[in-house]
Amino acid sequence: MSSARQFVTVEGEFPMHRGEALLTPTIAYETWGELSTQKDNAVLIFTGLSPSAHVASSPGDPAPGWWEEIVGPGRAVDTRRFFVICVNSLGSCFGSTGPASTNPETGETYRCAFPVLSLEDVARGGLEVIGHLGVERLYATIGPSMGGMSALAFEILFPGLSEGLLLISSATRALPFATALRSLQREMIRRDPNWLDGNYTPDALPVTGMRLARKLGMITYRSAEEWNERLGRERSAEQRETGNPFAASFEIETYLEHHASKFAGQFDPNCYLYLSQASDFFDVADHGVSVETGIKKIQTSRTMVIGVATDILYPLHQQQELAKQFERLGSKIEFVGLPSIQGHDSFLVDMDNFRPVIARFFEA
Amino acid sequence: MSSARQFVTVEGEFPMHRGEALLTPTIAYETWGELSTQKDNAVLIFTGLSPSAHVASSPGDPAPGWWEEIVGPGRAVDTRRFFVICVNSLGSCFGSTGPASTNPETGETYRCAFPVLSLEDVARGGLEVIGHLGVERLYATIGPSMGGMSALAFEILFPGLSEGLLLISSATRALPFATALRSLQREMIRRDPNWLDGNYTPDALPVTGMRLARKLGMITYRSAEEWNERLGRERSAEQRETGNPFAASFEIETYLEHHASKFAGQFDPNCYLYLSQASDFFDVADHGVSVETGIKKIQTSRTMVIGVATDILYPLHQQQELAKQFERLGSKIEFVGLPSIQGHDSFLVDMDNFRPVIARFFEA
Repeated sequence: MSSARQFVTVEGEFPMHRGEALLTPTIAYETWGELSTQKDNAVLIFTGLSPSAHVASSPGDPAPGWWEEIVGPGRAVDTRRFFVICVNSLGSCFGSTGPASTNPETGETYRCAFPVLSLEDVARGGLEVIGHLGVERLYATIGPSMGGMSALAFEILFPGLSEGLLLISSATRALPFATALRSLQREMIRRDPNWLDGNYTPDALPVTGMRLARKLGMITYRSAEEWNERLGRERSAEQRETGNPFAASFEIETYLEHHASKFAGQFDPNCYLYLSQASDFFDVADHGVSVETGIKKIQTSRTMVIGVATDILYPLHQQQELAKQFERLGSKIEFVGLPSIQGHDSFLVDMDNFRPVIARFFEA
Repeated sequence: MSSARQFVTVEGEFPMHRGEALLTPTIAYETWGELSTQKDNAVLIFTGLSPSAHVASSPGDPAPGWWEEIVGPGRAVDTRRFFVICVNSLGSCFGSTGPASTNPETGETYRCAFPVLSLEDVARGGLEVIGHLGVERLYATIGPSMGGMSALAFEILFPGLSEGLLLISSATRALPFATALRSLQREMIRRDPNWLDGNYTPDALPVTGMRLARKLGMITYRSAEEWNERLGRERSAEQRETGNPFAASFEIETYLEHHASKFAGQFDPNCYLYLSQASDFFDVADHGVSVETGIKKIQTSRTMVIGVATDILYPLHQQQELAKQFERLGSKIEFVGLPSIQGHDSFLVDMDNFRPVIARFFEA
């Protein structure tokens, strides 16, 4: 476990958005930089489905974070200037309470007895963390991917807390194509004979389901264009499995295999199912009679929406529509469409395109 | 079995493109219309991965075919004018010899002892059928999807047999994105505990793997745009599975479930694996030093290439590039990009866009 990881334990009951409550849940987070004496420089980051709160390296945890090139001293989100906070989503398995945690009321692991998870709950987890840190107002909230939906939930539930909002490759609600893909990923895990309705044992995890789900994830997180450029029809250099006529032949297959192996052992399957389903359930329209009335509850004074041309999961037109919703609010809104070829994951890898845009948002 | 289905049994050895041979294989086919006395009106259709040779209804089999609205009396491919032949691909399970057939040399089902299948073998199956029917020259060859690759193989291996060539949403070779998706579909089947290295029993088929593979298939055969229009975020009307917190909630999930159920029982899993892999292995460049030199072997005098804007499996730009390859041949080439929103499967469902274009090709 990272020694940079900090925790806040919520006293008493934590009400869940779709009913039931958690008793004394923990929210894990990390911070970088210092809160100014005016307490006006805090930046809150919600993450995508799978990352931990380890956005960037720090003295306590020198391992590179998932946004190492964006967050740090002198970087686009400059930690010499800003007090950056990243929360591990409630329901995840990197320190925050989730289906893999012990239910204090029963002494058993929650598993599928965990209440239905909503991104509104993830948002409330963020509120608990900033409250604990004495932050009363945020300079900005950042949310990429699922984190963008959590950030929207946060702004809708707790209006007026954030001055700025930076949404990256996100959504007011999932489109059916994205839901189809996520639903299939969930089914791959659930159909693994080792899943056992969530009651898998540590020595027999539903690894096959997790690997298949991750492969489909990678297919939808990256893009056809990137693979045309990077991989083409290159044959796999790895030794073929003997006796298997369907073993990997192409470099693209070896690439997926590599990512699946990396992921399958490190993420709890039930946590994955809960967070994935929360992404599909989220709908800004639930906070009004329509997406428009839901968005109207937001009180940020400036918002930036970034989308990527090759994203098939949260497509560019969806980002444009999201930006238009903010235009109607009358607050400052900037929409940026980037030509990155790495698809939905571009914000993690295409630093040449993302760095200057994010820097501009924070220089403002 | 359809009573319209006919068979040709190849005498002796049928050499396979990537080595080994089949002994006396059978190729199933159906025909519509009559061969003219000049024998100049035959049209050969190669199919996509999963359909049988039942393109259209006929007195022998009145059930609607998979291209019922395109092939028939007075239709775009007019069976009052043309003698239409459709072959069931070698390796498939609708009458032609494939992994589910009995190996006459051993008396056992081939299963994974079936030789490596290539679309060149499927093309040779087509040659056997037209030879058997006394057809020496084809008015045109048609190939949608995988059938387009089989048709390209046919034109390259047997140049000069076809006057015209109609390629729909096809490829000179698969792009890595398509290979990634098909490879994952194959893995879903192979990882099903019931697959047993291909030695599954009829009462315990790898149904879960087949269902998952079909769902991923449907996701890649249709399009995000179509589902935005048709399904949106409609909730599923079906009763939720009780006690399953991850049961289908959205109409898109019920839609995929319906298609998966329909498919899983009717297609042999090993046949699916072989045909899927053949689609990835196919490469026109194997017939020359490059795709260009491979295509140069083709001697059709007019070719039409149709692509669809929303196809993510065989994208429009790939169709444009295919058409450009034919331009270099100096023969007549027409490229048609259609705005259909049903993705790769548009040729099966978007008749309003496809009918007039195909009719124009055959009126010429």
